[in-house]
Amino acid sequence: MSSAAPRTTGQDPLWSVDEHLEDILATVRPLDPIELQLLDAQGCVLVDDVTVPVSLPPFDNSSMDGYAVRVADVAGVSEEFPAVLEVVGDVAAGQSDLLHVGPGQAARIMTGAPLPPGAETVVPVEWTDGGLGEGPVRGMTARSLAPEGAAGQVCVYRPAEARAHVRAEGSDVKAGERALEAGTVLGPPQIALLAAIGRGSVRVRPRPRVVVLSTGSELVQPGEELGSGQIYDSNSFALTAAARDAGALAYRVGAVADDAETLRSTVEDQLIRADLLVTTGGVSVGAYDVVKEALSHVGDADEAGSGIEFRKLAMQPGKPQGFGSIGPDHTPLLALPGNPVSSYVSFELFARPAIRTLMGLQDVHRPRTTATLAADRALSSPKGRRQFLRGAYDDGVVSPVGGAGSHLVAALAHADALIVVPEDVESVEPGAEVEVVLLG
Amino acid sequence: MSSAAPRTTGQDPLWSVDEHLEDILATVRPLDPIELQLLDAQGCVLVDDVTVPVSLPPFDNSSMDGYAVRVADVAGVSEEFPAVLEVVGDVAAGQSDLLHVGPGQAARIMTGAPLPPGAETVVPVEWTDGGLGEGPVRGMTARSLAPEGAAGQVCVYRPAEARAHVRAEGSDVKAGERALEAGTVLGPPQIALLAAIGRGSVRVRPRPRVVVLSTGSELVQPGEELGSGQIYDSNSFALTAAARDAGALAYRVGAVADDAETLRSTVEDQLIRADLLVTTGGVSVGAYDVVKEALSHVGDADEAGSGIEFRKLAMQPGKPQGFGSIGPDHTPLLALPGNPVSSYVSFELFARPAIRTLMGLQDVHRPRTTATLAADRALSSPKGRRQFLRGAYDDGVVSPVGGAGSHLVAALAHADALIVVPEDVESVEPGAEVEVVLLG
Repeated sequence: MSSAAPRTTGQDPLWSVDEHLEDILATVRPLDPIELQLLDAQGCVLVDDVTVPVSLPPFDNSSMDGYAVRVADVAGVSEEFPAVLEVVGDVAAGQSDLLHVGPGQAARIMTGAPLPPGAETVVPVEWTDGGLGEGPVRGMTARSLAPEGAAGQVCVYRPAEARAHVRAEGSDVKAGERALEAGTVLGPPQIALLAAIGRGSVRVRPRPRVVVLSTGSELVQPGEELGSGQIYDSNSFALTAAARDAGALAYRVGAVADDAETLRSTVEDQLIRADLLVTTGGVSVGAYDVVKEALSHVGDADEAGSGIEFRKLAMQPGKPQGFGSIGPDHTPLLALPGNPVSSYVSFELFARPAIRTLMGLQDVHRPRTTATLAADRALSSPKGRRQFLRGAYDDGVVSPVGGAGSHLVAALAHADALIVVPEDVESVEPGAEVEVVLLG
Repeated sequence: MSSAAPRTTGQDPLWSVDEHLEDILATVRPLDPIELQLLDAQGCVLVDDVTVPVSLPPFDNSSMDGYAVRVADVAGVSEEFPAVLEVVGDVAAGQSDLLHVGPGQAARIMTGAPLPPGAETVVPVEWTDGGLGEGPVRGMTARSLAPEGAAGQVCVYRPAEARAHVRAEGSDVKAGERALEAGTVLGPPQIALLAAIGRGSVRVRPRPRVVVLSTGSELVQPGEELGSGQIYDSNSFALTAAARDAGALAYRVGAVADDAETLRSTVEDQLIRADLLVTTGGVSVGAYDVVKEALSHVGDADEAGSGIEFRKLAMQPGKPQGFGSIGPDHTPLLALPGNPVSSYVSFELFARPAIRTLMGLQDVHRPRTTATLAADRALSSPKGRRQFLRGAYDDGVVSPVGGAGSHLVAALAHADALIVVPEDVESVEPGAEVEVVLLG
């Protein structure tokens, strides 16, 4: 699974952040496409090019409420010398049996209605007397109140050129043209186009189902009473929310006690609904770090490609990490550390790109930028580790929020960026340019 | 309802875009708060300040896997001259009955476990022989495999200062401090903090329920057969997706035929599940524009504050617009025009800010910026109208996509911005600076 031999220090081998991410993205594959109803496909990635089956609009139609007439009949007219035409009836939108408009005739026509045979142009109702004989009108009276508007005579006060106020068949898109390209993310305007060309469903990569479970015998569900030595489970909530935010359908399993057998059976139970599993805690060097112990034996051990590898990364926070695949379907699993800030930062760096790769997105990473560091004093960072500090970014300037401690969840809640301090930098002075990950 | 008298032209009075938006935002009020489970509150706005009930962490605890010891017992030690301490047992995370660490003693301690009484500092396991007597180790063996690790002796090779590797009670947040301010939008890190301080549920403004219905006898459901004079309904799909994108729970009712009685009863049926109703089509000057006709009589006509007002705006696309409130609860309703581009642009300008106001968000508008126009020829715009052209924005430059026609849904699907041409501008040259609405 490893892309390269890790750097070694005096003690443990250390992998770089980039090596770990590369291994994850080399393993995770976009999900198989499925056909989804249009609105269920919102936010998903189109798998095939979509071709226009029928031109849009499918027929010449009026862009105004008015009268469909022949050009010659309204040539040179004015308010003083109007054309007086015989109204042969209404053409409403959606009407299929069309009138014929002959010389000296007009059909009252509604926006979107097909241009009837014989008619060459449309004059807006505001250029006519609307059949009332009292000069220009502002609109038509509702047909239910004045059915006589569909008959009688109409005075036209202004001329119109051929095909004025007519939307030509195919003027939006023509049959056979490509409407959307494979790889397009379906937002509201793309859904509008797919509906407009008649697509009720579409083949996309589905949203990945992500199961989040935290581990730790000290964890209590928020809202319950806190006992001695206990803390509230926040990771399973934070990462479920973050997985949704990344585009996944996320399931929070909640906290599992530090018992290898319980953890193993919980993970096996969850495989059925998981395209990706994310655990927190139990990946370090302690005697009760059961995630390591449990996950080397999940699923069929004889299956090639299965197994979780635990590593130390040259990173702070987030040094201990696990990644691999488990079970008969080789479901990918990320075992993140348990400190709240470590797990959140690890999720942003590794789980979010994995989720977005499963979705088939091209752009799997958070945007990055450079910013000027605004701080009271220099930031210090351990040698040989890439540090990710919480920051508040505004218009090219970033300020650290809280300290480097991986338990500082309050500061995390007031940050909107991660300040990246590279491995070979031990101190960053105020005013220096730093790389920043924008958390959106 | 009007904030100001509209500008009048030779024909109809025209309201400005800003006047119409102002009237909408003056009418729409944030929804009443409800208590939601933490994960159901994701993306919602917090109603009250949240205070920390119990300090975080709630007790002094270890930040490492290692041994809890007394400072004097490890002072001056080295690999050559280690301290040899008696291991009195394990302190695991979540453990409530704590050992006492006396002089010459050590408790094996796990990350997150409470610092036991008597202990003053923590030495990481990597600074010890882990009880194995063979020099520095990389970690502990799982307790299930080596229970003897909780007893025997341990050699400590490096000294530690008082409270090294100890996270102090309250070092994250202290009881009584404000964790989050009213008005905060709850993203993953804020949910992390709320969980961490024990909040299982939280009072927020709920996501508004938005009912979208399109009108038009010409409309056919995508996926069905298109008859003569018919087109596919795209507006109800596009605006349902756009309402979700704005943060709403959206319900697509689909296309209603141009019959006032059907429309009226459909709208009345939907009131029960709507915080906002959005219709498309039927708002212009045609004889079949039934939205106008129907919606002046919805709900209790005697109720003050109810009623829909139909206007013409100095805007292209999107001239005809309706807005007001209907039914016993004065549910706000936006009646948007029916052309696909008109309805989408109107939604962006009027419905999206209304939805975000219902959510209690401070920032209800799409971001705007200025950009340099990249185009082959000048853009023309009708005098006295604010025009919104579809554009593609990239790094300070915007290019028009497709023409100005309000039926051009294919171009809309390839745009990510609206180019704003003010009322008093009739032509914009290539290279000019233009205002741009970024569609996200």
